[in-house]
Amino acid sequence: MKIEAVDFFYLSMPEVTTAADGSQDALLVRVAAGGHVGWGECEAAPLPSIAAFVCPMSHGACRPVAASVLGARVESRQDIAAISLRVAHDSMDLLQAAHTLSGIEMALWDLLGKARDEPVWQMLGYDRSETKIPYASLLFGDTADETRERAQKARSDGFRAMKFGWGPIGTKTASYDADHFNAAREGGGEDSHLMVDVGQIFVEDVEAAADRLPALEAARATWYEEPFSGHAFEAYAALGAHDSAVGIAGGEAAHNVAMARHLMDFGHVKFIQIDCGRIGGIGPAHDVAELAAARSVTYVNHTFTTHLALSASLQPYAGRAGDRICEYPADPSPLAQAVATNPILRNAEGEIQAPEAPGLGITVDTEALKPYLVDTEIRVGGKILYSTPSLG
Amino acid sequence: MKIEAVDFFYLSMPEVTTAADGSQDALLVRVAAGGHVGWGECEAAPLPSIAAFVCPMSHGACRPVAASVLGARVESRQDIAAISLRVAHDSMDLLQAAHTLSGIEMALWDLLGKARDEPVWQMLGYDRSETKIPYASLLFGDTADETRERAQKARSDGFRAMKFGWGPIGTKTASYDADHFNAAREGGGEDSHLMVDVGQIFVEDVEAAADRLPALEAARATWYEEPFSGHAFEAYAALGAHDSAVGIAGGEAAHNVAMARHLMDFGHVKFIQIDCGRIGGIGPAHDVAELAAARSVTYVNHTFTTHLALSASLQPYAGRAGDRICEYPADPSPLAQAVATNPILRNAEGEIQAPEAPGLGITVDTEALKPYLVDTEIRVGGKILYSTPSLG
Repeated sequence: MKIEAVDFFYLSMPEVTTAADGSQDALLVRVAAGGHVGWGECEAAPLPSIAAFVCPMSHGACRPVAASVLGARVESRQDIAAISLRVAHDSMDLLQAAHTLSGIEMALWDLLGKARDEPVWQMLGYDRSETKIPYASLLFGDTADETRERAQKARSDGFRAMKFGWGPIGTKTASYDADHFNAAREGGGEDSHLMVDVGQIFVEDVEAAADRLPALEAARATWYEEPFSGHAFEAYAALGAHDSAVGIAGGEAAHNVAMARHLMDFGHVKFIQIDCGRIGGIGPAHDVAELAAARSVTYVNHTFTTHLALSASLQPYAGRAGDRICEYPADPSPLAQAVATNPILRNAEGEIQAPEAPGLGITVDTEALKPYLVDTEIRVGGKILYSTPSLG
Repeated sequence: MKIEAVDFFYLSMPEVTTAADGSQDALLVRVAAGGHVGWGECEAAPLPSIAAFVCPMSHGACRPVAASVLGARVESRQDIAAISLRVAHDSMDLLQAAHTLSGIEMALWDLLGKARDEPVWQMLGYDRSETKIPYASLLFGDTADETRERAQKARSDGFRAMKFGWGPIGTKTASYDADHFNAAREGGGEDSHLMVDVGQIFVEDVEAAADRLPALEAARATWYEEPFSGHAFEAYAALGAHDSAVGIAGGEAAHNVAMARHLMDFGHVKFIQIDCGRIGGIGPAHDVAELAAARSVTYVNHTFTTHLALSASLQPYAGRAGDRICEYPADPSPLAQAVATNPILRNAEGEIQAPEAPGLGITVDTEALKPYLVDTEIRVGGKILYSTPSLG
């Protein structure tokens, strides 16, 4: 099989706000080869990601992603890895390439799994798809009361794990933040898993980040996520040296395996969180899961968008029974909800697992997505390089 | 002054080849504020970089670069740093943002320098612009004879330093590569500075990279550049541990200060090479120059495009007398040559220095660039987000 077509679909809610809700738009990728079709999703800005696929070559080390993908053979996971290696070299000066490739790479696994009638996790060498405890991924409220109410709602929705992120945390005092952490614990219940994500708010300021540790310990947070920018390994290590009961977590910004490895080896995080839609897809994420296991670091997916992305993000550690927790988009946008006709639902115990069906096991609802399709056209030097394809 | 306009100009040679010649296209940026105009250049894929400026917001942490730039105050270097910090946070999920910002940031320094009638290096705190030894940056030939001829030509053009890069090196045997290294030394002359750049060809393969060390030592190469991918700090350190007389060099891929710092602290390079058109501009590059000085690492610019980019890349270490060597595009494309009416020429001793004129000291020849302007249009949701502006 050779890759015959790669189509990008830019989808968006009619209105996009500055909330840290990554499900407000989406970039889906459809790949066709040998009569099969695979789907993937970039967790990335749609327009620059499309541009990185179609742009004219700048020179030999700055080629569009398309140059490494279209026409390439895809018969095995080694073929997928070869495409990724080619992109890394031939697009080394095209920064956006990793985000663009991520959705394509996922779609290739989906396609290959369908062609072989195997779920992706099985192609990765796992015997079974273990159940995971999904945590509701939620945003902090504007007030502690609002945070408490959101936690209570997640609890009543059956979640025994939840993560609060972003909002006003880190922008005021440590005591203000403590009120939110307490409210999340109270609302979520004494027996729930509680995680906190502060969205890089402290940049590299270890002291400001450490000021929040006592309150996080008091709220019995499992982890303290992304206190610093994605490359601030030294700050991660310095905060980790406080030897708190709260583990430091990070990794969603990793756009290659090395960045995730460095966050573990130089940043000493306890939890490594990988977004398959950014790190280059499922293969690199699986590499990180293996590196994490060798270091006794807990692997967790990062997913704040659709159930297509959720399935992809579960695959790399689907067979690892020890890594129990997974991120679950609890309140995604109507657009994100429209993507899958067969979303990944919680079982009677409130747990989830990567689908048993071939590939990623998600059926994309192309009809339901049509209202969200954003008409886009890119013209360069008199040629149309991209024009929104039909959802079919 | 507030930033009133940011215009991107996508320029290209009529034909672009797979040669590793980064001067085949260019993305220039013109910024206007308070009656002043500044120019900068992204060393990046033009189309994705433009898209990262104009794209619709995806969510609060994935905003277009424009959102942090247009309307922002620019009265001081602190204002420029504030814009960079805002881009790092508000566009944290937009990978291409650093490359887009790089050209804008340069243009802001140029504009501010012109407004204050000061060269950029003076605004950075340097008393004077020291002379540098420019090395001719050349590509290896297809044969060793061709490499020798190119070295001889550079020698006869008056260069007493030269760097050879890319071409077939690393794709055949160590002995084949040795012939090229010897040819470069022979052609360049016994007393010349010789540097070698292998363009990430060994990815993370330390052994293959180390196989070339004896021949590099025999050819008395000053440095051995980019043996590995930009994030492979462990491989850099392992190669450096061979304790060769040839220093390991790298850094052009750094798209933020942390990456460059890590290449020094974890990769133990002896030469740190920064491209102002990728790392986020002049401010971050100057931060790296200071970090390098504190570590006794030699700072070198990375420049393979125009004299506008050359001036920008000299500023961060213009006042550092100890860092003597600088990259100089010896044989750029006609497009790259057309950019400046006042290129940075070598003096009687064959040396160069950052201009004394205000800002970057380069006058952009808008008339000469017109034939290279690539007509580009981006339409999203019925709106034209970008259309090639007039060069005026």
